[in-house]
Amino acid sequence: MTKILAEFQAERLAANERILSGDNRAIKRFFRLDGEAYEDGALSAKTKELLGLVASIVLRCDDCITYHIIQCARQGVTVAEFEEAFAVALVVGGSIVIPHLRRAYDRMDEVLNANEE
Amino acid sequence: MTKILAEFQAERLAANERILSGDNRAIKRFFRLDGEAYEDGALSAKTKELLGLVASIVLRCDDCITYHIIQCARQGVTVAEFEEAFAVALVVGGSIVIPHLRRAYDRMDEVLNANEE
Amino acid sequence: MTKILAEFQAERLAANERILSGDNRAIKRFFRLDGEAYEDGALSAKTKELLGLVASIVLRCDDCITYHIIQCARQGVTVAEFEEAFAVALVVGGSIVIPHLRRAYDRMDEVLNANEE
Amino acid sequence: MTKILAEFQAERLAANERILSGDNRAIKRFFRLDGEAYEDGALSAKTKELLGLVASIVLRCDDCITYHIIQCARQGVTVAEFEEAFAVALVVGGSIVIPHLRRAYDRMDEVLNANEE
Amino acid sequence: MTKILAEFQAERLAANERILSGDNRAIKRFFRLDGEAYEDGALSAKTKELLGLVASIVLRCDDCITYHIIQCARQGVTVAEFEEAFAVALVVGGSIVIPHLRRAYDRMDEVLNANEE
Amino acid sequence: MTKILAEFQAERLAANERILSGDNRAIKRFFRLDGEAYEDGALSAKTKELLGLVASIVLRCDDCITYHIIQCARQGVTVAEFEEAFAVALVVGGSIVIPHLRRAYDRMDEVLNANEE
Repeated sequence: MTKILAEFQAERLAANERILSGDNRAIKRFFRLDGEAYEDGALSAKTKELLGLVASIVLRCDDCITYHIIQCARQGVTVAEFEEAFAVALVVGGSIVIPHLRRAYDRMDEVLNANEE
Repeated sequence: MTKILAEFQAERLAANERILSGDNRAIKRFFRLDGEAYEDGALSAKTKELLGLVASIVLRCDDCITYHIIQCARQGVTVAEFEEAFAVALVVGGSIVIPHLRRAYDRMDEVLNANEE
Repeated sequence: MTKILAEFQAERLAANERILSGDNRAIKRFFRLDGEAYEDGALSAKTKELLGLVASIVLRCDDCITYHIIQCARQGVTVAEFEEAFAVALVVGGSIVIPHLRRAYDRMDEVLNANEE
Repeated sequence: MTKILAEFQAERLAANERILSGDNRAIKRFFRLDGEAYEDGALSAKTKELLGLVASIVLRCDDCITYHIIQCARQGVTVAEFEEAFAVALVVGGSIVIPHLRRAYDRMDEVLNANEE
Repeated sequence: MTKILAEFQAERLAANERILSGDNRAIKRFFRLDGEAYEDGALSAKTKELLGLVASIVLRCDDCITYHIIQCARQGVTVAEFEEAFAVALVVGGSIVIPHLRRAYDRMDEVLNANEE
Repeated sequence: MTKILAEFQAERLAANERILSGDNRAIKRFFRLDGEAYEDGALSAKTKELLGLVASIVLRCDDCITYHIIQCARQGVTVAEFEEAFAVALVVGGSIVIPHLRRAYDRMDEVLNANEE
């Protein structure tokens, strides 16, 4: 993983730990649920990560996009598959998603290049 | 197809024809593009329709949800697969998507029951 | 409760039952979580229902607004309190929420009048 | 004006009157402000109504779209101008706005046909 | 107040002054209205700031979240109260708000720690 | 153009080139379409850029706002015209757009000052 992505993951984990160190039961349950929703089932984990990626793009959340790109790469998503998922997100969400798509390509290139090395 | 869904499709087609009867080139091109984004490629048409469905749920557009449920059923999406896609959309989008999910279950039941008959 | 609100509640319950009759664990857990988040705690149930109401208005979901208006009325929210919550939602969310506010006033009047009778 | 549009306007006015019959000063001020923002100034009222229309389409609010279509027609917006504004909204907002665009064409046709008669 | 929050406030004030130095009456009026909506009334200023906070989280605006966290702390909102408001926002808005929640916890910790010192 | 804006444009172009270097036909077509939607037609390019600007503000995308401010300035949009477009966006979109408006004023001042020099 590149330095940018390693830092992203470290900050993400530390911030999640802070949230889960609190006493609020509903928040803790939500986080558990969030993990379960992407596990293998009738749909594969790969398909679910692609669903999470496209949802994150049309809702325009950079951190969520970065997270799901990392997860998709772990599930073996290829460049051509990423681009087709981006295309669906772009057509559904319109040009307002383009700035997020620019950053998504950067993240995808980093993740896939790091995997190759 | 049930009467509700047949009416939905007929109205949708008539309204699209009205739009495409105009002279605006950008709108016509967008509609063509919209069709192409869901064709088989590196990702299957089935996966792309699921991506369109989840994007439609988190963006909370009932007509878009109905359309992609019909398309998903045509691609052989099963009840369990629909429900897992709904679960990803619900977790990403939150309780604000629940009213749309209620209607999505209705549409799914109609489409799948109609296919069985 | 008025006929409109009674029908809203009946349809809502039936649709929730349909969703919960399925096998998807993540969806069932989400629904339980959704109930817990509004229970009395450090903040009162009344305050939490007002939070849910304002969130529903700025996200522009009519069914969610109707639901939280009913819940707020049960918690004793008065007309003046409703209107101040509406004002915060209107200022944060802008004129795009006005059509939802028009329907919210209708629902509020129905709920509060029904309570008086 | 057609019957559909006349009913829309009557309901809109009655609901606004209900809102303004209340005691909340912030809400009343917002409504006044909302009117002023579209008056002739450095930009013409026509341009401002087109801005309101495109904002309403990308935010996907049918009532707001209907209202601004009526106002645009009063300012002399032509079919070709409407379609170019629709095209900008479609490209910015993506296919998720298409169901609203279908209804927008209906409203535009009603308004412009009513004006011709 | 910590350095981060002091800088946030200074930049916010300077930028607001720039906006209000212009000639546009509608913008000036909106800013006045924005202040009034959170004043004590039928609902307390504390409750209204919580409403503003939850609205800001579900609409996913970091600057708005930081601002309302500062205001909430001034009104005496405790950690447990913040977390319950966060929980409502998380359940309504879904996992897409989590990145904003991570930053919200940081801001809350800064504000509450600064108050203790 | 100022250094900030020159860097914005350079990064934007480089990122677009990366996207267009890929093999995805739908994405390439979308980008072409995006350019065409703002060309002179029944509505002037100036009016269309204002439409794009207001759409970008209410959808709260900083990069899109910066881009359309640059384009508007090229079409001769004046300070007073910018402010009236901002006012429409603020009234439609509510206080949640204010942080984006603060940055929009910065960008507008940079662009218009750079043009004067």
